[in-house]
Amino acid sequence: MDWLDEVKWDAHGLVPVIAQERGTNDVLMFAWMNREALARTAELGRAVYFSRSRGRLWFKGEESGHVQTVHEIRLDCDNDVVLLQVTQLGHEPGIACHTGRHSCFFQRYENGAWKAAEPVLKDPQTIYSK
Amino acid sequence: MDWLDEVKWDAHGLVPVIAQERGTNDVLMFAWMNREALARTAELGRAVYFSRSRGRLWFKGEESGHVQTVHEIRLDCDNDVVLLQVTQLGHEPGIACHTGRHSCFFQRYENGAWKAAEPVLKDPQTIYSK
Repeated sequence: MDWLDEVKWDAHGLVPVIAQERGTNDVLMFAWMNREALARTAELGRAVYFSRSRGRLWFKGEESGHVQTVHEIRLDCDNDVVLLQVTQLGHEPGIACHTGRHSCFFQRYENGAWKAAEPVLKDPQTIYSK
Repeated sequence: MDWLDEVKWDAHGLVPVIAQERGTNDVLMFAWMNREALARTAELGRAVYFSRSRGRLWFKGEESGHVQTVHEIRLDCDNDVVLLQVTQLGHEPGIACHTGRHSCFFQRYENGAWKAAEPVLKDPQTIYSK
């Protein structure tokens, strides 16, 4: 599969991935993929990442139900960063973050400090207590 | 400066950074910052990255004139990824990519191949031949 060879995998065999919401264009999260994760993402039309902490494939939503449908896969000019266009399923509005927020990027810099700037849409304990 | 200590810098003292365009919400580029780059970005209201290839601070636009005004700095839930909201200066529409395109993410996956899907807005030779 040539297209997978064109990706410049890092020393750990990984590539950084940005997930962006179709429609709003909000940046939902940032994660990593290895070769298999990217292949499965393209094959399934669903975001599959590589969890560095767990050392295995992470089918986004496998625990939370917050699956991401993938509409488009893009690669940057240096072939070393991937951008996904996704629909965030499982809640309306979509919850991508494990804190129960829409986006993982909820901390905003203000006058020398990081302030939480987005609401929790669902209690994380409810999300993960299956 | 406490807020800089809250960022989880990687083993190389760097953090990944996503630059997103205010208004369109387009993801323009992905780069890295060290502590000094993030401090200068906040101080100047202008994107300052750390160039891994050159091993020094990279004041975005220093050669191309394609400076990024920074409106907002965000940090993700794990404190290890930064998201900038920027206005891309120097050309209309903005050019963030060294290939002369609006965004670095111009390659789209289609049927097992990466296809260039965005136009070149300005010849890179013209951008960098000062």
